[in-house]
Formats: sequence, C-alpha cells, structure tokens
Amino acid sequence: MSFTAKNPLFATQVRNSFERQMAMTTIGAELILVEPGKVEIALPYRPDLTQQHGYMHAGIITTIADTACGYAAYTLMPADSEVLSVEFKVNLLRPAKGERFIAVANVLKPGRTLTVVRADVFSMNEERELIATMLATMICLEK
Amino acid sequence: MSFTAKNPLFATQVRNSFERQMAMTTIGAELILVEPGKVEIALPYRPDLTQQHGYMHAGIITTIADTACGYAAYTLMPADSEVLSVEFKVNLLRPAKGERFIAVANVLKPGRTLTVVRADVFSMNEERELIATMLATMICLEK
Amino acid sequence: MSFTAKNPLFATQVRNSFERQMAMTTIGAELILVEPGKVEIALPYRPDLTQQHGYMHAGIITTIADTACGYAAYTLMPADSEVLSVEFKVNLLRPAKGERFIAVANVLKPGRTLTVVRADVFSMNEERELIATMLATMICLEK
Amino acid sequence: MSFTAKNPLFATQVRNSFERQMAMTTIGAELILVEPGKVEIALPYRPDLTQQHGYMHAGIITTIADTACGYAAYTLMPADSEVLSVEFKVNLLRPAKGERFIAVANVLKPGRTLTVVRADVFSMNEERELIATMLATMICLEK
Repeated sequence: MSFTAKNPLFATQVRNSFERQMAMTTIGAELILVEPGKVEIALPYRPDLTQQHGYMHAGIITTIADTACGYAAYTLMPADSEVLSVEFKVNLLRPAKGERFIAVANVLKPGRTLTVVRADVFSMNEERELIATMLATMICLEK
Repeated sequence: MSFTAKNPLFATQVRNSFERQMAMTTIGAELILVEPGKVEIALPYRPDLTQQHGYMHAGIITTIADTACGYAAYTLMPADSEVLSVEFKVNLLRPAKGERFIAVANVLKPGRTLTVVRADVFSMNEERELIATMLATMICLEK
Repeated sequence: MSFTAKNPLFATQVRNSFERQMAMTTIGAELILVEPGKVEIALPYRPDLTQQHGYMHAGIITTIADTACGYAAYTLMPADSEVLSVEFKVNLLRPAKGERFIAVANVLKPGRTLTVVRADVFSMNEERELIATMLATMICLEK
Repeated sequence: MSFTAKNPLFATQVRNSFERQMAMTTIGAELILVEPGKVEIALPYRPDLTQQHGYMHAGIITTIADTACGYAAYTLMPADSEVLSVEFKVNLLRPAKGERFIAVANVLKPGRTLTVVRADVFSMNEERELIATMLATMICLEK
C-alpha cells in the first residue's frame, strides 16, 4: 500500500516529536526512516536493557515498536494534530538477541480518528530475523 | 482466585530472576509484592522515560506490566523452570502521569505449558487511577 | 466500578439494537442483563456451532463476548449514537464445553469516543467456569 | 515466507478436520485453499449473520479468520496432532459489507508447541477490500 501525506511537513513533525520522546534517547533508539505511512526505528543491543536471560526485554522491543507505529500513523495526520497509542498487541516470536534491532511500522488503515498500524521487529545478525510483531491502534487528537 | 505454589521457593526464584533483569534496574523498577499467582512492580516517574508529552512512555509502562505478568505466572511454575512472554495486549486508558506507577499482575488461568495473566497499571497520585491494562500469555520452559 | 447512564433510555436502546443483530437470533443468544456499564448475554450449547472436537467454536464464543462488550459500552453512550467494535483480543482459557455459556461484559474505561471493555465468558456446568476473556475497544459514532 | 509440511497428508488432515467443524457448515463457510502455512476460507454474505447495521457480525468474521489461522498452523504440524486456538486479536478496519468475504491466513512463525499466524479478511466487492486483520497464537497438542 502507498499513502500520501496531507501535511507536507510530516517528516519534520515526526522528527520533532521523536526528539521530545526522552525514552528514545535514554534507550538509544534512532529514527532511521520516515515516509508516508511508514517509519523505522533502530536500537542497538544494550546489556542494561535486558531481561533475565540477557536478551533485550520484551518491553523495550515493544517501546520501539510502539513509537514506530505511532509515528507511522502520525505521518498521515494533519498538521498540528497529536498522536496517542490506544492499544497494541505484541507477539514475541524469537528471543531478542543480536547486535541491533529494527522496528518497521506500516499503516494498514488510516482514518480521521483511528489508524491501524502493523510493526515487525527484526534482529539484525548475520541475517535479518523477525523477532516480534505488533498490531496497534493509534488515535489522532486535534491540538 | 487463590493459588498454591508448587515450588516452595517461588518467591526466591522470582526475586533472583528479577535481579537479573537489567532493564528493571535501568528504569528504576522495584518488585514490591510476590505471592502465589500475584506480583506487583512499582516504578517512579522519571523524565528520561517519557514520550513526547512528558508522560511515561507506553512501552515503559508495558515493560513493568510484562515483567509483573511473567513473574506472576512464574510463581506457579515448578522449580528450575523458565518463564517467557508469548504475547500481550495492552490498552492505554489514561495518560501515564503521576509520581509513581504500580503494575498489579494476577494469574487468570495457570497451566502446565501456558499461563494467562492480567495486569492493571495504576498511577499513584492523590488517588490511585487505572492507566493501562494488559492481557498476556506466558510459557513455562523446563531448564 | 459503578457508572451512570447519560441516556435514560439506555436499556431500551440496547435491547432494540440487540434485536436487530440477526446473528444473535441465528445462534440463539439472549440478552439477560443490561445495566449502566454492564451487559450479559447467554448462549445455550448447540452442536451446529461447534469446532472439530465438539466444543463451541471460539468464534461463536467471541461473537457473544463482542456483542456484550459493544452493548456494555453502548449503555454509557448518548441517545442517538451508534456503537462499533474497533478491536478485541480473546484468550481461550478452557474448552467451551457445557450446556450454556454466559458472556459478562464490564466497562473498564468509558470515553466520549472510545470505551474499553472487558468480558469474561463462563461455561455453566455444575459449576461456573471461566472459559475465555476478552479485552475490547468500542467506538461511539454520532448518528 | 515459504514452508514445507512435515505431514504429507496435511491437506487431507485439514479438510477432514474442517468438515467436523459444524459451525463452518452452519454459517456457510468454505475451505478454498490449503497450502503449507497458508489457508483460505470463503463466506458468502448472509442477512442472518449480521449485526445491527446489516453488516456481517464481527464475531462471524472472526470465526472464519480463527478457523483459517488454526488450519494454516495445522498444515505444518505432525500427523495425529491437534490444533487449538490459544488467543487472537482482531482489528475491524471497515464495515463487513459485500457479497463474499475471504479470510487469508499465513503462518508467521511455526513452532513445535506454538505457531503464530496472521489473517487478513477481505470483502469481495467490485474490488477486494481489507476489512479485518487477525494476529493469533495456535497450540499443537499430541493426540
């Protein structure tokens, strides 16, 4: 699916908002792609973000998937709107081991109020492996 | 519902595993209750874990809810087993603002392989307010 | 939690809408309780609604849980509004065997646009057993 | 992704099990494709399976999506195993209007115990339109 952004400054709007997400800086996440309906976020492995077996914590993987979904939806929202997560579901498919993780979020269905987004999270080792998938609902709020 | 733990050392097993979750230390989460089928985790507000509006990031709220669900399930698992998250769904009900957050996880249905757990996350302000709810599936792996 | 209905005719509004759900008549479901924020629907076991092992099909159990959630939300919506399901998640906890099933839906968080509802589905045998649980988001549309 | 079935009789096993799902006959669903890791089920519109606005009931759409997910997982399971739904999440994207609906389920991650499956449900009008999407976990039980 391909989408057209209503807001010509969608990429700037997303980048500015991302920079205000202090959690992103804290965990070391980076916004690597912003297109209409699609956002990618990368996160390097860090031992201080792991669960009990030394893999990245499912909640941290969720954190980048949620932000990627939110901003994928936000690219299609009007200028001066706000985006908030309504809900999401995550399936953890494989242990989050690897040097780097990428959350790839794609809008499935944009809407004036609600936007449904899917994100896949890959672990980047010798080969790219799907480790988690999210199905999320985002809401557009007028400022 | 009330449950009986098969493993008399369930609380020690949970506490030891929690201490190995580096992500918990990093975000400042604290294990405040461990009972058969029930676990509570507290998290103080921290500006470096926020989203773009200054509220705690949904992914961070999910992180404590997921850990609480996992360990609530783990209290009912045999000694020398491991617990992993299969999947979870989170509804974000109110902005995560407040000084402190508590995730309260209760097992709904224990099982030899799969355990289903519900967690409610409260923001502790002048009054306790429900800000998120999780429905999760955990799996028991024999070591 | 206890709620107050804004629409004094909420029960009539729900009952009228339920009667227009042809699927309810077809599967033999009955609306047995309508209170502000709470709805119950009963369904007798029927061999023609089963899956491959002779238990009630998870989709049919979902059908009554979804309708119960939708109408629980609808009790708190204004007159002349419409309710639609945004999304739901269901955990199947035990096989749906028994003579009769009851879906009990309770609003967790009402909202002007979105309402979050939880439903538990019980199988009514010698004792009442929890067989499934739903966490759902409903949307209010003005007519 | 492409998968190989361990059970050479996977298609027969799926078809036999589908025929025992009385709910499928009752609602008029038809198994139209069975490949390793992929299953499609079609359902014609029927006024007796509708919700209050005359669209197909979300629970009925879920019923075909759940069965499609279960059997997509089942194609990759060993002979003489059983498949059961653990949980699923459904986002309803558009009203289920149209003459015919097709649920297309694809395995995302097969496993010895758990298999994660995604299903998209399309309404077949002049053009094929995505009306719902499911993310589901299925479990393999040895007979």
